[in-house]
Amino acid sequence: MYRLQSLAARSLIAGALDQCTPLTLTSLTGVRHKSQGPSVEKYGQMRFLTAEAKVSAGRLNGKMREKTLTMDTLNPQVKAVEYAVRGPIVIKAGEIEKYLEEGGTKPFSEVIKANIGDAHAMGQQPITFLRQVVALCTFPELMDSPSFPEDAKWRAQRILQGCGGHSLGSYSASPGVECIRKDIAAYIEQRDEGVPSDWENIYLTTGASDGIMTILRLLVSGKDSSRTGVMIPIPQYPLYSAAISEMDAVQVNYYLDEDNCWALDINELYRAYQAAKLHCQPRVICIINPGNPTGWYNVKLFLCARKHNALVFVYQDNVYTPDCQFHSFKKVLYEMGPEYFNSVELASFHSSSKGYMGECGFRGGYMEVINMDPEVKAQLVKLLSVRLCPPLAGQAAMDVIVNPPQSDEHSYKQFHQEKSSVLGALADKAKLTEQILNAVPGIKCNPVQGAMYAFPRIFIPPKAVEEAKALGMQPDMFYCLRLLEETGICVVPGSGFGQKDGTHHFRMTILPSIEKLKVLLGKVRDFHISFLKEYSALE
Amino acid sequence: MYRLQSLAARSLIAGALDQCTPLTLTSLTGVRHKSQGPSVEKYGQMRFLTAEAKVSAGRLNGKMREKTLTMDTLNPQVKAVEYAVRGPIVIKAGEIEKYLEEGGTKPFSEVIKANIGDAHAMGQQPITFLRQVVALCTFPELMDSPSFPEDAKWRAQRILQGCGGHSLGSYSASPGVECIRKDIAAYIEQRDEGVPSDWENIYLTTGASDGIMTILRLLVSGKDSSRTGVMIPIPQYPLYSAAISEMDAVQVNYYLDEDNCWALDINELYRAYQAAKLHCQPRVICIINPGNPTGWYNVKLFLCARKHNALVFVYQDNVYTPDCQFHSFKKVLYEMGPEYFNSVELASFHSSSKGYMGECGFRGGYMEVINMDPEVKAQLVKLLSVRLCPPLAGQAAMDVIVNPPQSDEHSYKQFHQEKSSVLGALADKAKLTEQILNAVPGIKCNPVQGAMYAFPRIFIPPKAVEEAKALGMQPDMFYCLRLLEETGICVVPGSGFGQKDGTHHFRMTILPSIEKLKVLLGKVRDFHISFLKEYSALE
Repeated sequence: MYRLQSLAARSLIAGALDQCTPLTLTSLTGVRHKSQGPSVEKYGQMRFLTAEAKVSAGRLNGKMREKTLTMDTLNPQVKAVEYAVRGPIVIKAGEIEKYLEEGGTKPFSEVIKANIGDAHAMGQQPITFLRQVVALCTFPELMDSPSFPEDAKWRAQRILQGCGGHSLGSYSASPGVECIRKDIAAYIEQRDEGVPSDWENIYLTTGASDGIMTILRLLVSGKDSSRTGVMIPIPQYPLYSAAISEMDAVQVNYYLDEDNCWALDINELYRAYQAAKLHCQPRVICIINPGNPTGWYNVKLFLCARKHNALVFVYQDNVYTPDCQFHSFKKVLYEMGPEYFNSVELASFHSSSKGYMGECGFRGGYMEVINMDPEVKAQLVKLLSVRLCPPLAGQAAMDVIVNPPQSDEHSYKQFHQEKSSVLGALADKAKLTEQILNAVPGIKCNPVQGAMYAFPRIFIPPKAVEEAKALGMQPDMFYCLRLLEETGICVVPGSGFGQKDGTHHFRMTILPSIEKLKVLLGKVRDFHISFLKEYSALE
Repeated sequence: MYRLQSLAARSLIAGALDQCTPLTLTSLTGVRHKSQGPSVEKYGQMRFLTAEAKVSAGRLNGKMREKTLTMDTLNPQVKAVEYAVRGPIVIKAGEIEKYLEEGGTKPFSEVIKANIGDAHAMGQQPITFLRQVVALCTFPELMDSPSFPEDAKWRAQRILQGCGGHSLGSYSASPGVECIRKDIAAYIEQRDEGVPSDWENIYLTTGASDGIMTILRLLVSGKDSSRTGVMIPIPQYPLYSAAISEMDAVQVNYYLDEDNCWALDINELYRAYQAAKLHCQPRVICIINPGNPTGWYNVKLFLCARKHNALVFVYQDNVYTPDCQFHSFKKVLYEMGPEYFNSVELASFHSSSKGYMGECGFRGGYMEVINMDPEVKAQLVKLLSVRLCPPLAGQAAMDVIVNPPQSDEHSYKQFHQEKSSVLGALADKAKLTEQILNAVPGIKCNPVQGAMYAFPRIFIPPKAVEEAKALGMQPDMFYCLRLLEETGICVVPGSGFGQKDGTHHFRMTILPSIEKLKVLLGKVRDFHISFLKEYSALE
């Protein structure tokens, strides 16, 4: 393949250069003179170019159909990437949506996209204070407006003080605006009840994905990547498998225990590690806390990861089951004593997309990296600097998230109301989802303790499994496509996240409004029952 | 190295897992009960952990000092990355800045960072209309405010209509908000006097760098990358060399003709291509138009690139030398006839950072990709979807850039005044820079026709070259460090951009205010003269 391509590319480029050589003999200056007026020069040039084109065309006949970038020459690692959350089923959902908009008819009036945790798209209202601060940073003339509270103005002023030329339009330092990094460190110290956090270990990112990719990039080399194993929990968030494919690392799956509410079974982790050792070098263990997609949550993890590099993806503000609270990895390391706290290489991530803010579009995020070799840290900063800096509006949003109104501030009351109502609604939705789904025969849904997703297990009758296989499709993809076609509900097949062989699931976000969620879950129930009927041997 | 690391990693992880196994026997549920109250549970857990830690510590003695991520195990491609624009000299400048802030003394009172094209950091004022629209999108309550003009509100409403839940906080489709892609396509059609542009060929990006990286990622595979050559103009913008190192592709330099105002010499391009063919497969030709770092600008280029994949980095609005105007690559292809226009794979990039807007911090950008194989295009969208979407505020900014106030709109007058004054100032600064530098013996500066940078050639006396070599430094790095130490002016050595052997340059932005620029250029002149004296054999 490459040899062919090589020939094609060479002939193309060589051809091009042959073409060009004579031009160096022309007296064409290449600079148009405005004095001639645009139209004249335009036609002047067109005549020249057309003549030139005729010549070239003759000499190049046919060749132009050859493309440099084809499926054969495409980077095979890109080809290998899979990303279920925005995969075929979501594309299909988009097509159906368009079809309905254009007046097409279906057994349903709208497509409900429960495939991605996009809170605002699902109607969640932004936190007023956050938007006030970002608007003030964007358009500082608003500092004079009486309709903006002083505490918002104070924060905006502080952020702008940290920006070049006091403008959100200037680049920040590659790791982010210094005062925002300091606010994040202070927030982490408070979260961890005094465990120290050094602001120079904080790096702002473009959403959490960017940070995860960057740290993986340090660990995984294109050439030796086949030796680098990345241990990830299954079910996982597809970003990890996508990043691993793109970098050509080895994905090492360890399966979470569905029967124990997606707990991590140490023996399973050990099994996965031993198996991996035979064909790669496991160097990263990725732990999702609380779990995405399943709100999986188990403190034993803390005691197991303490001697790995762990990529910890933290949904900081999303624990809402009354008998649980967020456990910080770093705090546990600290409580274990200096021999752990001062040596375990840990990178933990947070983003503005999650929690009660749900500000996905701002692409705000940060990572805290502790115990990284200082020389490696310099390399990390260099790598970040090639991307220049994360978006400033996202950095500003992140600052408000870690530095919200305090109880003695004017905006506190409204902020607290808005935050509580979002988290309260999430808790209600989690409960509702669990209750309705578990009442359906052939569906089992673990409690959703954190995050914003449910990952129910679905029974798919053998007949349906056969039909799917006949279509060259995963059974749960077949199931989700049928669900979409018949109800307009878009959820993601479990196979996109990974699941034990022979088990089937789908992932759905619990973010739609209570009313919409009830409708959605009711439709899922009715669909599932008729699906069972259709494919049950007992019919 | 890898074997050692492997052993280290294995013992670490194995050790960890041994540690963990017994824990599965404990009755620790891992869920804290709020009822116990925070302090009690904290101490409760601390006691347990400390005990546990003691045991483990004994069993792990020493081991913890081993790190998984060291300079030996770091991805060698990351190690290879160089990024002059934010390299050692800029770090040094930051240190001096801090030193001055903390009351330290130097022969100067402030550091002037002329290393990066960061317009707003240099005091350029944002375009009011752009900020109004983004602020309205961020905080829609402002739609009711009489202090915002209707044309800004109209644009903001239109953008929000295109966002999920009408919120800037929702994810957009991975290629960007549809109506913004359509506005960009319309803008390109107008720019190219009617040459068609398909909005589905437009992809919003996080600044231009993100787009360039993404297209390179499609072309360069980790494993076969040694075969993929990327032809770049020298002097280049270091993003290209950095991206090429990170992806382990082969950088193929073609030198621009400094004596001919950085024109592209076709014979040089041909030489570079022939030389490259011997050890790699040149598949990309990168053309910078108008040039960065040197405002290099030559229409012959158009006639040479037409049969390559060309990454064209367009500084759309920055051509301000009176006798030049912007030439669109795509338009020239069109004028050459369908055999070119319908076959040449072309990706061109634009960003909100450049032009008269200078909105770097918003990280807005887009690329237009024509004649890409449809299957490959699907792969591109998949790759983009892993990063979810570009920041929405940056997308909104980009929309204003391509869809500014029209002459019949309320905001036109102010917009036009602001735009003209920025472009006028840029033209003055370009002229001033050229004049003052060319009056200095031993400095030769080509006219700056586009972009926002000057790349003057500097004569460095042999004695100074020797001294630099003795210090293991590039002569121009030595020169720039001296300049920084003695004047506080931070410019980037030409070696960071590439230059013909034996020639030396530095790159400076022309963005400081006229007053500041005069001071800066005066200091450069005085420094250069005394530097020549110091190292001249004639002294």
